[in-house]
Amino acid sequence: MEHPDCVEVLTKEDVPCNKIGHIKQDWDVMMGVGDITRYMGNVIAVIATDKKEKLDEIAALVEVDYTELTPLTSPYDALRGDAPLIHPDGNVMSRANLVRGNADEAIKNSKYVVTRKYKTSWQEHGFMEPECAIALPEGEDGLLIYTTSQSVYDVQRECSTMLKIPPEKVHCRAPLVGGGFGGKEDMSVQQYAALMAWVTKRPVKIKYTRQESLAYHVKRHPMEMEFTTACDENGILTGMKGIIIADTGAYASLGGPVLHRACTHAAGPYNYQNIDIFGMSVYTNNVPSGAFRGFGVTQSCFATEMNINLLAEMAGIDPWEFRRRNAIKPGDVLPNGQTADPNTNMAACLDAVKDVYYGNKYAGIACGFKNSGTGMGKKDIGRVLLSVEQGKIHIRTSASCMGQGIGQMVLTEICHVTELDPALFVFEAADTVRTPDAGTSTASRQTVMTGEAARRVGEKLKAALAGKTLADLEDREFLGEYSAKTDPLGAIKENPISHVSYSYGAQVIVLNDEGRITKAVSAFDVGTPVNIQSVEGQIEGGMLMGIGYGVTEKIEIENGVFKSRFGTVGFMRADIAPELEVILCQPKEEDKLPYSLGAKGCGELCMIPTAPACAHAYYRYDGKFRQSLPLEDTPYRKK
Amino acid sequence: MEHPDCVEVLTKEDVPCNKIGHIKQDWDVMMGVGDITRYMGNVIAVIATDKKEKLDEIAALVEVDYTELTPLTSPYDALRGDAPLIHPDGNVMSRANLVRGNADEAIKNSKYVVTRKYKTSWQEHGFMEPECAIALPEGEDGLLIYTTSQSVYDVQRECSTMLKIPPEKVHCRAPLVGGGFGGKEDMSVQQYAALMAWVTKRPVKIKYTRQESLAYHVKRHPMEMEFTTACDENGILTGMKGIIIADTGAYASLGGPVLHRACTHAAGPYNYQNIDIFGMSVYTNNVPSGAFRGFGVTQSCFATEMNINLLAEMAGIDPWEFRRRNAIKPGDVLPNGQTADPNTNMAACLDAVKDVYYGNKYAGIACGFKNSGTGMGKKDIGRVLLSVEQGKIHIRTSASCMGQGIGQMVLTEICHVTELDPALFVFEAADTVRTPDAGTSTASRQTVMTGEAARRVGEKLKAALAGKTLADLEDREFLGEYSAKTDPLGAIKENPISHVSYSYGAQVIVLNDEGRITKAVSAFDVGTPVNIQSVEGQIEGGMLMGIGYGVTEKIEIENGVFKSRFGTVGFMRADIAPELEVILCQPKEEDKLPYSLGAKGCGELCMIPTAPACAHAYYRYDGKFRQSLPLEDTPYRKK
Repeated sequence: MEHPDCVEVLTKEDVPCNKIGHIKQDWDVMMGVGDITRYMGNVIAVIATDKKEKLDEIAALVEVDYTELTPLTSPYDALRGDAPLIHPDGNVMSRANLVRGNADEAIKNSKYVVTRKYKTSWQEHGFMEPECAIALPEGEDGLLIYTTSQSVYDVQRECSTMLKIPPEKVHCRAPLVGGGFGGKEDMSVQQYAALMAWVTKRPVKIKYTRQESLAYHVKRHPMEMEFTTACDENGILTGMKGIIIADTGAYASLGGPVLHRACTHAAGPYNYQNIDIFGMSVYTNNVPSGAFRGFGVTQSCFATEMNINLLAEMAGIDPWEFRRRNAIKPGDVLPNGQTADPNTNMAACLDAVKDVYYGNKYAGIACGFKNSGTGMGKKDIGRVLLSVEQGKIHIRTSASCMGQGIGQMVLTEICHVTELDPALFVFEAADTVRTPDAGTSTASRQTVMTGEAARRVGEKLKAALAGKTLADLEDREFLGEYSAKTDPLGAIKENPISHVSYSYGAQVIVLNDEGRITKAVSAFDVGTPVNIQSVEGQIEGGMLMGIGYGVTEKIEIENGVFKSRFGTVGFMRADIAPELEVILCQPKEEDKLPYSLGAKGCGELCMIPTAPACAHAYYRYDGKFRQSLPLEDTPYRKK
Repeated sequence: MEHPDCVEVLTKEDVPCNKIGHIKQDWDVMMGVGDITRYMGNVIAVIATDKKEKLDEIAALVEVDYTELTPLTSPYDALRGDAPLIHPDGNVMSRANLVRGNADEAIKNSKYVVTRKYKTSWQEHGFMEPECAIALPEGEDGLLIYTTSQSVYDVQRECSTMLKIPPEKVHCRAPLVGGGFGGKEDMSVQQYAALMAWVTKRPVKIKYTRQESLAYHVKRHPMEMEFTTACDENGILTGMKGIIIADTGAYASLGGPVLHRACTHAAGPYNYQNIDIFGMSVYTNNVPSGAFRGFGVTQSCFATEMNINLLAEMAGIDPWEFRRRNAIKPGDVLPNGQTADPNTNMAACLDAVKDVYYGNKYAGIACGFKNSGTGMGKKDIGRVLLSVEQGKIHIRTSASCMGQGIGQMVLTEICHVTELDPALFVFEAADTVRTPDAGTSTASRQTVMTGEAARRVGEKLKAALAGKTLADLEDREFLGEYSAKTDPLGAIKENPISHVSYSYGAQVIVLNDEGRITKAVSAFDVGTPVNIQSVEGQIEGGMLMGIGYGVTEKIEIENGVFKSRFGTVGFMRADIAPELEVILCQPKEEDKLPYSLGAKGCGELCMIPTAPACAHAYYRYDGKFRQSLPLEDTPYRKK
């Protein structure tokens, strides 16, 4: 096979976004809440050559005639009645509204009420492996694409739609992915490789440099919030209302669903029912915002938890105690109307961090929760296929393995059910020909969805093996599938089931006398862990990422153009990482989630409460109530 | 009686709003949609003296210690996550959301879709009589207040609440009011006179100069809008969605209900059911915005009608024909879910302006509708008391007569029913002791509410007179009352009755070859007019006010401070007024509204479609699609 060629992509760095052509597509996919318009890129020309060193020379031949317009660099500029339209369908990309009970009335009748504004900034995923794709002709009229992605089926659909060919003509394979965190849900490089390979009928490779990766993939949405939260004289929460305005950047990506989750989780994991949240995702000419671990909840959790600290102060109740009194319990109703499951273990998480919180003068606390599975009545399916080939059992699922241990989880569940030796199994890489569609690795969904599919296929294999040997099953295939049943947004039900499950947790951040973070503790209800080491690793990583988000990282974007470098973003480094402790608060056997051996997702929750816990710790440390992320005026970042 | 004294009020002109103390009160009143927080004033000190010429001297003795902060002069500044809070309960004063059907889906599946942004500015009521109040002690522990107001009972409640005395201790009287247009719904001078008279136990008079009046009473809300409207290949409207952001200024006034009506009427008087409107009223440090004839609908109508002009163009359908195809008919469902009454006569209004529209090269057209009555499940009651005193029948109602002819309307209905000679009647001025509470003269409600109360009391009087003479009834009293039954916002009904009735209409504005407005025609469905001359006068006045709003008026507000003078606002003057024509499209006898002899309100509708009709006329004249009010680059106002 000929070696892949080189491609250079001319991007918007030199051209304001207003001028750049873009391809937008309507999505109605399993992982979304509705119609998602994603961006296919912001590209003027794609150039390929056999000789990489010639790329600049060739690129210089492309003449671009453009007018430089003043970019709209804030949602407020874009909302103005006299602002230009960034896209023909308007600058308000999406909206979300969650109303339960009567927030205004509840707030009016409450003893303590607090209103504050909050502001969060962009965050960069900082995954280890920058985006890369290799596309080459396959058969007479098909393409084969090797790429990094959170779903090979998304790549297949996008590229086949772009090329106007049947999906089965685009064969996509993804080896193990070097980190995603939501940053590899959108197309980044795949469509350019596909387009060029399709046109040239030759293998094409495209690989972003780190700087290109930083500049072109989506970032976490900056959100600005005005939240009002109220409680009674005993510190029992009574109601909250809020406005969220998100900067969704120049292209849509997942601006809609991210905003939606920010709103549906904005009241926090507490037992009160008078909620009124409105959010808008607004186009600007900034770097696009999209999916990022926590998916909007990271932002709204900051505002909610900070308001709760103030309310606790007003009511004269300790912040831990205040949260404990309000913690959602089984049978309580979540802000979105869903009844909390028997496995809901929020209170136990708070109990687990009680000692570390009270034992440290500068300890900050925050709680959080996060849906597992996309839910909302959308198609949400996990699949695992087992095939017996030459005496080995091949585990085939498209669930993208990007460091979070999906392969390990699936293997563990199957071995647990079948009681077979793990050495008998081969875990295959995601491949649109070999592996059935298990949906995108997003929304903390794979542990529940594909985990349950794995458990089910394990049961099938076990039944088939009864009284037989593996050799008897040679060439047999077994399909495990789990399709979560949830209610759509706006379902006419008193208590709709929006998501199949939720994870809950409390975090404590401890500062030393110099204001440095010395310890971070997570007590999490992520159900019954399938693989404790993997769960702990995931949560430890999430805490560090959360500390980075809260304290050390800051991205510079000027006139819509990404200016930071990998070394200047301020990722939390291992040499200054605090001691990390993970406590898993498991439910009783009889209360377990009846899927995936009781495991709930933990991929996102682990960083959701971290930033507000940091902010609370600094509030206790120096009395300054900080309302913006990243936190300023700490030993990590000075004003 | 001693003559009233003089008062000077020190106001915010010299002091930024952030620093000014304010009194806010929660209202749950008959004319509102919920809890309305009004402003009682923005005053630092109230000074009174026997010698008016000494006022400046005394005022100079007041030392004010303040810090000048940077004012927030746009809603966008106030929405920012790092903006200061203008009030402790947040900068988002109120929100409204109207969702019917699935707008996103309908728009996505439509042949023609248009998205545009629009911007409207402040408007000054320009009533003839500036605000004045005289307060004096009455009895041992009461007050008597003479004042100009749209409701004496509002004055009573506000002043008694402020003084913490029972309402019955505050006796309020309002002679005929020299114009209101919504600008006299709030307290303006009354509370200062009351406070000073209460403290000094002497009569106190306060009268705003014209400049003070301009500076201190509320203005029409500036609104900025992004509206998307869609239709099919036949020009049949399919769906619309929009965002409205209103600048509600430094104090609440009626920011909530105004926004609400802007949203509920934003789809226009057309037959389509996929609607998604969200609005926010945002505090700024600007002059407060509040009630103004049209009550928010004037603003959203501009955006909707302009989008419709573009859709008509895209679909290749004439703008008149486009509207005619979509005009709401009896039995159709209004955007708020209410079924249109048998008396709905929108199509007839369009038919009535067809000739003038087609007969003029530069004719612009627009439609509009407006609720009569506050509705929304709120208490909405009209009352008329008749008392026979010394051979005369006294008509007693607090319904504020401010030039719109309420007295004439009530008298006409009673005479119509009783067949008595008008000369037998005495119409009394509004008075909290003499006249029963008929609610505020707002929301185009008095013709239906108090009109129906008048009809009912007429029936009672007629029955009592059967076989008797008026002398037999000496000292008798008869109460007519009408309480409209409507459904609250969010009522769980397929077709809630939000308002007891609606008026509809089409307007055509004709330009000559020089671009000057030579003719304005209104064809209106305001039900069965009680007094044609009065209705025509009201509509003619409304058209001129609408032309002023659309074309000639512009208010200058700098750093939150009102800078224009009465002569520079640009009110439409009589000497340049165009020919005005009013056509009343009455329903058939059997379709009449079953209240108030079939009369519907016309106080507000008359100026709602005017500005977009002007904009359309100029679009036809010079091809420029103007998206801001007042219109620029016309013979009346140059850029």
